[in-house]
Amino acid sequence: MEDKVYTLVSRETKKEDTIITVRKDIKIGGKQIQIMAGPCAIENYEFTSQAAKACKKSGARILRGGAFKPRTAPYSFQGLGEEGLKILKQVGKEEDMATITEVLDPKDIELVASYADILQVGARNMQNFALLEGLGKIDKPILLKRGISAQIQEWLLAAEYIVLNGNPNVILCERGIRTFEHDIRSTLSLTSVPIIKELSHLPIVVDPSHSSGRPSLVPPMSKAAIACGADGILVEVHPKPEEALCDGQQALLPKDFDKMMQEMKLIAKAVGREI
Amino acid sequence: MEDKVYTLVSRETKKEDTIITVRKDIKIGGKQIQIMAGPCAIENYEFTSQAAKACKKSGARILRGGAFKPRTAPYSFQGLGEEGLKILKQVGKEEDMATITEVLDPKDIELVASYADILQVGARNMQNFALLEGLGKIDKPILLKRGISAQIQEWLLAAEYIVLNGNPNVILCERGIRTFEHDIRSTLSLTSVPIIKELSHLPIVVDPSHSSGRPSLVPPMSKAAIACGADGILVEVHPKPEEALCDGQQALLPKDFDKMMQEMKLIAKAVGREI
Amino acid sequence: MEDKVYTLVSRETKKEDTIITVRKDIKIGGKQIQIMAGPCAIENYEFTSQAAKACKKSGARILRGGAFKPRTAPYSFQGLGEEGLKILKQVGKEEDMATITEVLDPKDIELVASYADILQVGARNMQNFALLEGLGKIDKPILLKRGISAQIQEWLLAAEYIVLNGNPNVILCERGIRTFEHDIRSTLSLTSVPIIKELSHLPIVVDPSHSSGRPSLVPPMSKAAIACGADGILVEVHPKPEEALCDGQQALLPKDFDKMMQEMKLIAKAVGREI
Amino acid sequence: MEDKVYTLVSRETKKEDTIITVRKDIKIGGKQIQIMAGPCAIENYEFTSQAAKACKKSGARILRGGAFKPRTAPYSFQGLGEEGLKILKQVGKEEDMATITEVLDPKDIELVASYADILQVGARNMQNFALLEGLGKIDKPILLKRGISAQIQEWLLAAEYIVLNGNPNVILCERGIRTFEHDIRSTLSLTSVPIIKELSHLPIVVDPSHSSGRPSLVPPMSKAAIACGADGILVEVHPKPEEALCDGQQALLPKDFDKMMQEMKLIAKAVGREI
Repeated sequence: MEDKVYTLVSRETKKEDTIITVRKDIKIGGKQIQIMAGPCAIENYEFTSQAAKACKKSGARILRGGAFKPRTAPYSFQGLGEEGLKILKQVGKEEDMATITEVLDPKDIELVASYADILQVGARNMQNFALLEGLGKIDKPILLKRGISAQIQEWLLAAEYIVLNGNPNVILCERGIRTFEHDIRSTLSLTSVPIIKELSHLPIVVDPSHSSGRPSLVPPMSKAAIACGADGILVEVHPKPEEALCDGQQALLPKDFDKMMQEMKLIAKAVGREI
Repeated sequence: MEDKVYTLVSRETKKEDTIITVRKDIKIGGKQIQIMAGPCAIENYEFTSQAAKACKKSGARILRGGAFKPRTAPYSFQGLGEEGLKILKQVGKEEDMATITEVLDPKDIELVASYADILQVGARNMQNFALLEGLGKIDKPILLKRGISAQIQEWLLAAEYIVLNGNPNVILCERGIRTFEHDIRSTLSLTSVPIIKELSHLPIVVDPSHSSGRPSLVPPMSKAAIACGADGILVEVHPKPEEALCDGQQALLPKDFDKMMQEMKLIAKAVGREI
Repeated sequence: MEDKVYTLVSRETKKEDTIITVRKDIKIGGKQIQIMAGPCAIENYEFTSQAAKACKKSGARILRGGAFKPRTAPYSFQGLGEEGLKILKQVGKEEDMATITEVLDPKDIELVASYADILQVGARNMQNFALLEGLGKIDKPILLKRGISAQIQEWLLAAEYIVLNGNPNVILCERGIRTFEHDIRSTLSLTSVPIIKELSHLPIVVDPSHSSGRPSLVPPMSKAAIACGADGILVEVHPKPEEALCDGQQALLPKDFDKMMQEMKLIAKAVGREI
Repeated sequence: MEDKVYTLVSRETKKEDTIITVRKDIKIGGKQIQIMAGPCAIENYEFTSQAAKACKKSGARILRGGAFKPRTAPYSFQGLGEEGLKILKQVGKEEDMATITEVLDPKDIELVASYADILQVGARNMQNFALLEGLGKIDKPILLKRGISAQIQEWLLAAEYIVLNGNPNVILCERGIRTFEHDIRSTLSLTSVPIIKELSHLPIVVDPSHSSGRPSLVPPMSKAAIACGADGILVEVHPKPEEALCDGQQALLPKDFDKMMQEMKLIAKAVGREI
């Protein structure tokens, strides 16, 4: 049997919370809760810019958007690739937002890191060890999504791969697990938030969009995430969800995102934090 | 294929929220959030009384405690039976609290209803149709726990059995589902709270104790439950958890319960409610 | 924590296989594999009789058919009750077959036992402890289906409840568990067959109909069940599946059942048994 | 929503079974069932050679063994890399066996393909799309394991990625799914075998070792796999399991493998096939 012990990411090794500096004024894991918002995929400049303006105005400091999209079917829209990265960077600069985007292939790490501030590992790649090792060799923050059927121990060991290879800046992200529930796209296991806080010093954020699968469930689950201790939210916002090329059915409209942000600020205050 | 449509419990049938009156001053489903707290099992007068005094003082209005305990093994403590019901009723009266307790066998419904204010259907019995039909014939409120692997539709259909038989006073209770997660006793699926609110007019409460399996996880998950819209919390509190005959490992100490209550009041206020 | 140890049903307590005598010439758990076949529900004399004649001719010795049906929705056909039991008994007598049928409510145990040779506990009732205790007090064989999300240990402890109350004649039945798989009604976990054989001396049969949800999957899974050591098969056969009031979509036609029986006999022989 | 339709791998597109030629005399998907046996990891020449001799003698034609090992923890043995590939090739040649081994990183595809006859995609990489696309560009057969929480549709779409990129030689492999079951390492969902046969023309084999997690369960589940229509078995055999650096606890001893092979031949015959 293999020894499944993580050391570097363990709370036993390091008592104090890790606070990751994305930018001088944007930190993850401290008192300030970070909202990472934007479209699922970068589709063009216009949608990205509109989404970013709205998200910024409502209080988000980090712009999300995919350029390389992992898709279940080979016939689905696969993302704009480097062209998408360029748009993301440009819009981020225009709106003074930090950026986060996904990387799928170890050979693209350097390219993606040259455009974005945070690199995201998707749920399907949580145990893509070649990718994790590559990400351990850069110095940008990595957001590591939980695999859809990953035990918490396996998730922490995936983080350990990155840290052991040299990069201590790992942000965990609960995004829902696969269960028997049919009514929900995946089951958001929010209990993982306080468990991670007990087991590890790494920050943890929650993605309520992919698990909910529909916009009406996103605000209550975002508030619940903040209430139980999450350090941030990764959420899909799109100016025209019905025209989105990817996952439009779960994106919030800017006005609904704004309403949610106001509500989340009250919850953040109730738990002694701010957004 | 059988037609799996619920009617009576559907939001389409009745737009406004059902508010259940437990006692003139204790309602479930309205602005006031109800906390149902106490020991897992009624073990003796002393523990029950100590727990009740502490819970009342911290703001709980409903006392919980099991007299008939469903236990996985036949060799485990099975509850005090009617003797337990008597203690529960007496302590409830002394502390001016309403009471809730579980019923396991259709033949015991009348007995249990003669002692307690709310009757609870445990997760294992969610599809014990003989029991559901019997509970439809009394007029006390019924708390119906979600089965550990019940789809939301099946849960609502179980409620439909009770309502169809004549009792409209059903309170749903999310208590965690069985998934592959080993680190957690069961996976609390809080997304069911806003989903139930969309699909049904019935109130819904959350039991964070059984799913967590350890006390440290109960406060964050209770706060999350309130943040996403739950109408109440069912929680285990025991003055001496290490001496409990049932599930002591997950019970809160009175002082930790009190701290949690203070924190929950802030969350309740942040979502426009009160405890 | 409760002590979850089973004793009476454990292989450690009794090394040799338990062989249950249903009738002088029908034993479960020995060299002969038993096929329990018939309609999901007893709907009328004609269908029951036609099904029984066909099943008998193809080699089945036990006739199945439900009189009390546990249904997810209160509006679904709930079975004929005692009228169904009478038809089952009559047809069993006419075709010289033993009979098996489900009991749902502790108060019906005596009634059902007066008509049928084997009493079945459905998956939803695996932890209906009042029912299990009642079944422990009769002397007819009990077929105990695995709950859709029961751990093997919990299943054996449910059997322990029956045996501890006085009835050693328990037949276990794997019928599929609830998982994330959508393409299958439930996931038949055949590995439970050799595991049960290691942990317990009780016989185990497999129900491939409910898990498959469609007839084409029943023959391959029945053959697999025999190949890995099952002591029997519980299978739905209906002369006119399209007119069935319950689960017709998964019932085999008599001709397909006959073909499957011929194939199963070859598998039985290959593992040193007979049908 | 993305369109999740597979075309190239669908039974509707191609009615007849795909038969994959590994070597002139070794085909997968035809009447002959193929057994792929050997150690989990290539650890050294001696163990590999001993395992291969035993497997060949008992009737296996394909030698398995990992050189690049995906391990949950970064501190576990990660495989010998190219050195392991050399040993595998040499032993395969000495014993006149075809070989199969896993590839983890797109950049290693060419290297692995230069040594092995079949390339394996592990469960963790089923949706590593960069890897799948790379494997679509070579002409060696690919064994694609089902992800531990993959729906059958997702699995077939992963195969579609390979075929669409140019390589039609895909062998599917059921290896168990992640469920709530604790007593079993993962739940072998054998029903996927007949379902795949209905939906696709591709061959399917079963890996009973990883799901069982212990040797005693491997023979019954291997026999069940053959009985329900599998085209082969992928199984771990090790001359000294207690000294294995990887998964030794589930490997069969050569003598137990030999016994299992004799039993499997009887099952194969009973379903009209041969080993």
